[in-house]
Amino acid sequence: MEDSPPGHRPPRIVVIGGVAGGASAAARARRTDANAEIVMLEKGEYVSFANCGLPYHLGGEIAQRSKLLVTTAELFWQRFRIEVRARHEATRIERQAKIVEGIDHATGQTFRIPYDRLILSLGSEPISPEFMNPPAKNVRHLWTLPDMDAVLAEIQGVAKVRHAVVIGAGFVGLEVVEQLAAIGIRVTLIERGNQVLKPLDPHFAKIVQRELTNRGVSLHLGVDVAGLDRDGDRVTGVRLSDGTTIATELIVVGAGVRPRIRIAADAGLTIGKTGGVLVDDFMRTNDPDIYAVGDMVEYYHGVLDRRMRIALAGPANRAGRIAGTHAATGKSQPMGSVLGTAIVRVFGVTAACTGLSEHALTAEGIEHHAVIIAAPHHASYFPGAEPMQLKVVYSPKDGKILGAQGVGGQGVDKRIDVIATAMHFGGTVYQLAQLDLAYAPPYGSAKDPVHMAAFAAVNDLESSPKVVPPDFDLRGYQVLDVRTGRERTELPLPGAVAIPIDELADRWEELDPTMPTITVCHSGKRAHVAACWLRGKAFSDVRNLTGGMSIRSLDQP
Amino acid sequence: MEDSPPGHRPPRIVVIGGVAGGASAAARARRTDANAEIVMLEKGEYVSFANCGLPYHLGGEIAQRSKLLVTTAELFWQRFRIEVRARHEATRIERQAKIVEGIDHATGQTFRIPYDRLILSLGSEPISPEFMNPPAKNVRHLWTLPDMDAVLAEIQGVAKVRHAVVIGAGFVGLEVVEQLAAIGIRVTLIERGNQVLKPLDPHFAKIVQRELTNRGVSLHLGVDVAGLDRDGDRVTGVRLSDGTTIATELIVVGAGVRPRIRIAADAGLTIGKTGGVLVDDFMRTNDPDIYAVGDMVEYYHGVLDRRMRIALAGPANRAGRIAGTHAATGKSQPMGSVLGTAIVRVFGVTAACTGLSEHALTAEGIEHHAVIIAAPHHASYFPGAEPMQLKVVYSPKDGKILGAQGVGGQGVDKRIDVIATAMHFGGTVYQLAQLDLAYAPPYGSAKDPVHMAAFAAVNDLESSPKVVPPDFDLRGYQVLDVRTGRERTELPLPGAVAIPIDELADRWEELDPTMPTITVCHSGKRAHVAACWLRGKAFSDVRNLTGGMSIRSLDQP
Repeated sequence: MEDSPPGHRPPRIVVIGGVAGGASAAARARRTDANAEIVMLEKGEYVSFANCGLPYHLGGEIAQRSKLLVTTAELFWQRFRIEVRARHEATRIERQAKIVEGIDHATGQTFRIPYDRLILSLGSEPISPEFMNPPAKNVRHLWTLPDMDAVLAEIQGVAKVRHAVVIGAGFVGLEVVEQLAAIGIRVTLIERGNQVLKPLDPHFAKIVQRELTNRGVSLHLGVDVAGLDRDGDRVTGVRLSDGTTIATELIVVGAGVRPRIRIAADAGLTIGKTGGVLVDDFMRTNDPDIYAVGDMVEYYHGVLDRRMRIALAGPANRAGRIAGTHAATGKSQPMGSVLGTAIVRVFGVTAACTGLSEHALTAEGIEHHAVIIAAPHHASYFPGAEPMQLKVVYSPKDGKILGAQGVGGQGVDKRIDVIATAMHFGGTVYQLAQLDLAYAPPYGSAKDPVHMAAFAAVNDLESSPKVVPPDFDLRGYQVLDVRTGRERTELPLPGAVAIPIDELADRWEELDPTMPTITVCHSGKRAHVAACWLRGKAFSDVRNLTGGMSIRSLDQP
Repeated sequence: MEDSPPGHRPPRIVVIGGVAGGASAAARARRTDANAEIVMLEKGEYVSFANCGLPYHLGGEIAQRSKLLVTTAELFWQRFRIEVRARHEATRIERQAKIVEGIDHATGQTFRIPYDRLILSLGSEPISPEFMNPPAKNVRHLWTLPDMDAVLAEIQGVAKVRHAVVIGAGFVGLEVVEQLAAIGIRVTLIERGNQVLKPLDPHFAKIVQRELTNRGVSLHLGVDVAGLDRDGDRVTGVRLSDGTTIATELIVVGAGVRPRIRIAADAGLTIGKTGGVLVDDFMRTNDPDIYAVGDMVEYYHGVLDRRMRIALAGPANRAGRIAGTHAATGKSQPMGSVLGTAIVRVFGVTAACTGLSEHALTAEGIEHHAVIIAAPHHASYFPGAEPMQLKVVYSPKDGKILGAQGVGGQGVDKRIDVIATAMHFGGTVYQLAQLDLAYAPPYGSAKDPVHMAAFAAVNDLESSPKVVPPDFDLRGYQVLDVRTGRERTELPLPGAVAIPIDELADRWEELDPTMPTITVCHSGKRAHVAACWLRGKAFSDVRNLTGGMSIRSLDQP
């Protein structure tokens, strides 16, 4: 069956895939060209669904499944005159003939549809580690609505799930952990790497790990799945590389995703170095009539100054808008740089990041410094202030911001968004220190956590004084601990000279000014004051421990 | 009594005033010079207190008064070796001799103190309208701790306050209204202008006004106080210019502030056009040894491109840091531009703004356009989404952002801070549309409200299609109302052609394509879709009503 080729007018725009930018692209194409014929081919049942919401239906936080259906084929037709062909899987692009070929799973028939412009939004698909083969009823990904339905069927099944294993401690993995725990399931989280949330540096990941442990999640880091214990079509246990076996009734696997690029590659579209479809600023592939958006493409990374895959919903939606506009009109604003800004709620903790972590920068060979501050999310004297730790990573050459991470309660999202905005403009920590942010006691502080972090970074850059990282090896240094006695008892720092900050002006002469000195407190703020004081008293080399014992102590078991 | 002049070293830095930047300046001077002699002269009892927190102690939200005492003279000495001389009022600066003269109110003696560098942080003082003369026990400002104590004494006095009048609907006035109402006092709010919160445009102010009225506050706009009814040293009623008299047991006056510049002016320091002390980027006055910070100075306004007074705590604190650094070391980073970013909580509503409003831009003769969008503060399918209305004002020439306003529940602060950050960098609405913000369902949407507003502005700039303002005169236009029947019943729009958006593709031919047409919906989103459709069908002139009926209906009584 072949659709008739479009006449001279109106043009036909075909969109393959509704999630991750496709629906955005189609709707936007309609808004910029009321007369184009627009057809969306969707392999599954649903034109678009809230894939970021799937974990939250598992725990019932999003109570109604229907809430996840962002839009419907019917609405797309009524409102936008976009024809959605569900269960239509595209299998091949004939670029010369400008035809998409595929299978209509409803009928089993092959379809062929001509296009003038084609927009690919095939997204990505979860990686299935070897242990998932053969499939088992209770070993599942959580990537699509049917995935979610299958996991829910397990949870709500006859044999009640008491214990679940989540494999992979990425963003979605942690959301699933939280939601399963919320409905009383004992959860074990298994992660091959040495920390949860790879985009965070280890210390910040440890704060999340502490929260997981505090909430009763059993955490296994740095271990692989060696195999599964099976009983017919079900799995009863997970064998780990360290010899442990964990009995379980449900396994949810989040072991990363890979872009769905097969039909693009088969059609000769250029694939970039990171395995995504290469596009220009208008989301055009090397075929000017074929666009691609979402998890399957490579975006321009604002810090790394090169294109790479960034599988996030925000860029996908913005890219969809651009591709839809350009496909319909031949012009659009260019796609901006992407920074990998991401956020996750893990029980009472929010963890967020933008740009690159220190370990990512180190791996790239990019020189960087970092500061960590602790601050309440609003005026400390106003009730309900929640603690937050904020890290800013920057170039020691010019202070350009390279990344930021935040962990805490309320308001972490705001600070990361503010820093991501500054980074969009290539901002420096000097500029960050000068932002004019909204302040009233219920919302922030006259010196916002963003300012405090920027001040710390500027101090470091201007050697007034410099910082050392949380895991700095203190051996061979004179270490001055300016905390109170009670703080020192709670988190001991053996080998340090203890002089509470408010006694330092009287007692600093007890210290040796010729020794290289590191000052330490709980969060780094008083240590900075102490370092300033000693430097002024002609101590030859004084630095302060960024983040203080609140961060350094995370390294202790 | 005269302090001995400082010897060749160390230098003596004298700071006049602790609030509004002075304490910041002193502490920062110490951190950058451990050896300087630093003296703070404070007219009142307290070295520094949380003036932004005062309203919240009235209502008991900040339960302990001691929480408002940010720091103490004792701590300043112990930690920073800063000598605080409380109850020392500076009255005169002898610039040639570099001496500050004043009165020690503890002893009644005159003091004279030499300085090498002087930092003025005298702040501002509340304006007392004529009706406050003679003083009455129950007619008060709320500017200092003693003011707050006096108001509290009234509230907690023998004759219980059942009804209070707040005069002036600025930020502090509204905080006081909220807090008094929270403890069961019936509050009347009187404002000379035609709206609350002058930095907001009228429609957004009306949303705040609706909240005030819904919470039982009696609101009198556009009226003056004609006089007070007095009974001895107490006032029993307020007579308004419209003839009304309001019986009351307590009056709190917030009628604006004026900078405390007398001793600066007397000393021949240059005063700027808006009545504040003129300073350079390092907070230096025309005397290079005298700095000034806080409410008493003029900052560089990033939108207006000129210096003006901006009486806010954030800039004061940042300026203090700069003045302290520069006074101690002779160099510092320059002070950044200020945008007047401000925020207030009024019961369940947050109102915030940055940059200039439309009415301020109009008064300045600066050409501008504006869009208003409505969006939930996080993914609409995630429980607890709170509505927000966001306005972005921009230059029609190049899309440069000139201001923004937000009113809603949670997350308004984040969006205003993000836009203020973009404005710091001279950002455009095109760039705003491309920000890479953090998204997960509990925090935002893949298309954040900031993006939605930017998209609307870009559409307007690119005539795809343009918007008309909420109060646009619709007479003579073909008005297409694409809302549902129920929405039309709730907020009628007489004279419009009603075609629900999802019927438009079938029924658009009922309209006259030669008529200039305005499309309308509840928030502006569907109206944009409709306008796009009609434009594509060769309607000659189609625009959509920004903000929709949700904003336009605020004009109806």
